[in-house]
Amino acid sequence: MASSATPPVPTSKVLVIGAGAVGAFYGSLLAQVGAEVSVVCRSDYEQVKQHDFIINSQALGRWSFTPANVLKEVADFKGTADYILLCTKVIPALNRIALIRPAVGRNTSIVFIQNGVEIEQEMQDAFPNNEVVSGLAFICCNRLGPGEILHLAYGRLALGNLPSGVSRKTARLCELFNQAGIDCGTSEDIVSGRWQKCVWNAPFNPLSVLSGGLLTLDILQTQESLVRSIMQEVCDIAAASGHPLPDDIVNINIDNTYAMPPYKTSMLLDYENGQPMETEAILGNALRAAQRLGIAAPHLESVYALMKLRELKLGN
Amino acid sequence: MASSATPPVPTSKVLVIGAGAVGAFYGSLLAQVGAEVSVVCRSDYEQVKQHDFIINSQALGRWSFTPANVLKEVADFKGTADYILLCTKVIPALNRIALIRPAVGRNTSIVFIQNGVEIEQEMQDAFPNNEVVSGLAFICCNRLGPGEILHLAYGRLALGNLPSGVSRKTARLCELFNQAGIDCGTSEDIVSGRWQKCVWNAPFNPLSVLSGGLLTLDILQTQESLVRSIMQEVCDIAAASGHPLPDDIVNINIDNTYAMPPYKTSMLLDYENGQPMETEAILGNALRAAQRLGIAAPHLESVYALMKLRELKLGN
Repeated sequence: MASSATPPVPTSKVLVIGAGAVGAFYGSLLAQVGAEVSVVCRSDYEQVKQHDFIINSQALGRWSFTPANVLKEVADFKGTADYILLCTKVIPALNRIALIRPAVGRNTSIVFIQNGVEIEQEMQDAFPNNEVVSGLAFICCNRLGPGEILHLAYGRLALGNLPSGVSRKTARLCELFNQAGIDCGTSEDIVSGRWQKCVWNAPFNPLSVLSGGLLTLDILQTQESLVRSIMQEVCDIAAASGHPLPDDIVNINIDNTYAMPPYKTSMLLDYENGQPMETEAILGNALRAAQRLGIAAPHLESVYALMKLRELKLGN
Repeated sequence: MASSATPPVPTSKVLVIGAGAVGAFYGSLLAQVGAEVSVVCRSDYEQVKQHDFIINSQALGRWSFTPANVLKEVADFKGTADYILLCTKVIPALNRIALIRPAVGRNTSIVFIQNGVEIEQEMQDAFPNNEVVSGLAFICCNRLGPGEILHLAYGRLALGNLPSGVSRKTARLCELFNQAGIDCGTSEDIVSGRWQKCVWNAPFNPLSVLSGGLLTLDILQTQESLVRSIMQEVCDIAAASGHPLPDDIVNINIDNTYAMPPYKTSMLLDYENGQPMETEAILGNALRAAQRLGIAAPHLESVYALMKLRELKLGN
């Protein structure tokens, strides 16, 4: 006789790697809804080990987050993670594959919540027998100090398996986020979502840095034409790579940016804090795709070259 | 019976307007060969009135320059100048025509030694009955302090009448400069020379600023492709405006820049000193010509837009 009772859902074991603002925020929410969440945090290890994370969210209130385990190194993780949540920046100095490998078990789903385009293939190649899930976060949050996170606005997530589709485990993770109060959706074609996010990131991130620190609204009000040109080039590259974006995507991005409060981009925050910027993940990868596919992208090319000069100067 | 004696050449009366580094340097050389040189210098007036200019040239030695008259305002000039030497920067805040008008007499030749393209027409329109001479200086000199000029390198001048040709008075001025030890040439088509100078200025000036202060060699070694793209666009615009440049001009500029010592551009010096930059004269005018003539210049367009953002930020 069939039982009508739902079988108990086993506790999900989650390992967050790169517990900066984004990782700590999303990890703490999964812990709130019952997941067993461990974190690897190198620079803030002592603070978090002794005093937990403190999350201040303008929308969700203030809470502290005590991870199941606070680890200095990925190799220190014991047991098997159902999900690795990789939340580092994507920068050339950091080998994402080598970083996570010690914690990847047979049944581990690798979820990366990161910026950039064309950052998928190397993960699929490195872990061909694991589920690899690409995640996009639409969030504004900052690390104020060791273990202290400020969530300013937004928070929406999109998740989807690579190369495409949505697995049962991905759907389950999405459900957990929604239980925790986060608007999380799944996408059968997350790679298109990644290009779509790049439409906004490719102009505003570098222009905020190269201008010397302008907010989004100032950039848009004075140089909308350059912003549109870069956006259109990203759309052209996305289409050529098999991920055509909606026809009105540039207009929507422009309108939304006019409507939202003036915003300091993540690249500008990195720049001001002397941190490496995601120039290669966002601009370099898009431009290399353009070159591979034979798409002209002269505005993107100019902005990328200027960012490389800026980085060269910073390295001096 | 005809006399074989050369008639005495009358002393040339020269009024230098904008006696910064370039104006004081060239003015002092004309004084050395017998011209009667007055200067208008506003900010350094007291110093120069009491202690003259001091010119330190690595090639020509050190000398002091006592102008025939040191004036605070153009309107203070008495008498008639044979030549006005206009050596200010070309920036939107400064009305060049209104500035010089009080000193322009019936026989005054107006000589501007200034940067930029398409800065000629307004002068021809404003002074249709005067000779207007366009001058290009290839020089590296800085104002070290009030009345104190450092001449680092180069010094070549090119002079030509507008809209074209070389008048007797222009040839005479050129002769004076050569007597003073300056390599000065005349050009039947000085407007082409102005575009040719822009080929170098259009990439290196803004890239030095937008990179945050790189010297020419660093820019070239890491982003030669962007430099070449901007140079080629300037060539395309020049050609469309009726001033085709030599086929190999881009290669020559690249080779020369590799060969010369790493150099801090004038725009970068202005930027570092908090002075207005010649963004409009060099980039804005070139781009407006491109738009008028239907020439695509996406790299120049990007760099110009970024300079406008940088200026907006500086104005905050």
